[in-house]
Amino acid sequence: MNLFFYKLEQAAQNNNTRLCVGLDPRIDKIPPPFSNHQDPIFSFNKAIIDAAAPYACAFKPNFAFYEAGGIEGLSSLKKTIDYIPPEIPVIADAKRGDIGSTAQAYARAIFDYFQFDAVTLNPLLGEDSIAPFLSYKDKGLFILCLTSNPGAGDFQIPNNLPEQIARKVMKWNHAENCGLVVGATNPQAIGGIREIAPELCFLIPGIGAQGGDLENTLRFAPTKQKNGYIINVSRGISQPPGEGDLAIRAAEAAARFHKAINKAKEK
Amino acid sequence: MNLFFYKLEQAAQNNNTRLCVGLDPRIDKIPPPFSNHQDPIFSFNKAIIDAAAPYACAFKPNFAFYEAGGIEGLSSLKKTIDYIPPEIPVIADAKRGDIGSTAQAYARAIFDYFQFDAVTLNPLLGEDSIAPFLSYKDKGLFILCLTSNPGAGDFQIPNNLPEQIARKVMKWNHAENCGLVVGATNPQAIGGIREIAPELCFLIPGIGAQGGDLENTLRFAPTKQKNGYIINVSRGISQPPGEGDLAIRAAEAAARFHKAINKAKEK
Repeated sequence: MNLFFYKLEQAAQNNNTRLCVGLDPRIDKIPPPFSNHQDPIFSFNKAIIDAAAPYACAFKPNFAFYEAGGIEGLSSLKKTIDYIPPEIPVIADAKRGDIGSTAQAYARAIFDYFQFDAVTLNPLLGEDSIAPFLSYKDKGLFILCLTSNPGAGDFQIPNNLPEQIARKVMKWNHAENCGLVVGATNPQAIGGIREIAPELCFLIPGIGAQGGDLENTLRFAPTKQKNGYIINVSRGISQPPGEGDLAIRAAEAAARFHKAINKAKEK
Repeated sequence: MNLFFYKLEQAAQNNNTRLCVGLDPRIDKIPPPFSNHQDPIFSFNKAIIDAAAPYACAFKPNFAFYEAGGIEGLSSLKKTIDYIPPEIPVIADAKRGDIGSTAQAYARAIFDYFQFDAVTLNPLLGEDSIAPFLSYKDKGLFILCLTSNPGAGDFQIPNNLPEQIARKVMKWNHAENCGLVVGATNPQAIGGIREIAPELCFLIPGIGAQGGDLENTLRFAPTKQKNGYIINVSRGISQPPGEGDLAIRAAEAAARFHKAINKAKEK
């Protein structure tokens, strides 16, 4: 097990949790008082991080929401990463996929500049698009295998790409730094991917806002050792239901997902 | 023809050129005197833009090389876009692919914040990953169809994805704002894609450093009207051969590619 996956497993055990918390701040959805602060995105994220950290084994900011704010937004991202407690690893949801020296430049941006612990990658361009990331042996790479959106039916499912991708990633995984992104909206497919990749860690989005099925997902996702997966929730925690203090509602939402996952795990 | 493709065609006709110039500054390859300037990336890009503009119908910065420099690098990108003459359109080589509100945030970053005229997109996640970009009716979207790297043999070619992608993009193209990225390393495949998409504009990388075949590419790429394609060259111009003044060598390289394309066109 490489450094990232070790750190992830430690965080999961320390907090008895498989919950990964997405940090996808939409500037138009940031409520007061955060919206009045000098750096609304960062102060909003701080509140979410403080609220969710006791229930989280990882945080996952998605680049898009910071890039939408331009230079300022990316500066909020940098501050956010630095603020996350060091014992909780941080995954860049970047879905990058480019070739040769360009992929190398993305890897430098994500691991060397922003200092993320792990990244999500798009494998459409094949092995040489992943290779520069593979050489970061202490980091984690979650490669898109089966996504949770309707568009997965356009190219992924008709071509059986999830199976092909899982087989390739097994070959690329010399440094044991690879995992897969597998959406929760298709639990039976998760079982098929787990057969191909018995030990790889799955990053599982699609629970919550996207309507994925937690119980069935947890029937198929775990390894034989009953670990090897994390469940991501973004809007479900950072845009929690109800009224009033955001920090309290976000903590309650995180606690609720944490409990639901641990309950479903035991079924 | 939408605003972007109209602007591109005007620039192509004005300069009698099909050359798109990639702006992919590698900080470790920037020579003096630019490397000593306060913003080495921007001052290097300025020299390349000034040198290549008379031969170019578009410029194409790739996000990766700016992100590698972090906040500062992205600020150089912003300045670079603003510096490019307004009659020459600017394509964001971003290869983004994400879903729903995330794709929307990327579109805002690229079109609203950075003010690019067009973008490259990765279609692996299907229609809902492209939809937020499609709604920018004045912009251009170049969707990855067949890439020029060896890894195209991992998933794209074995599954005949280029053909499937071209067919889908034809359906998504209600606003006539779509084009395709088609690598020059496989000229015959370009012919097959042209049959499916008789009118779409092709952005063609892979000439120059990647060894694509210009003459055969230009046999297969043009539409019946003998246009509908642009040929990208990055390193071939920004890391030109020889010694001495970079601006002169870059201008000579751009002139050489411009001439080679126009010559191959006439065969």
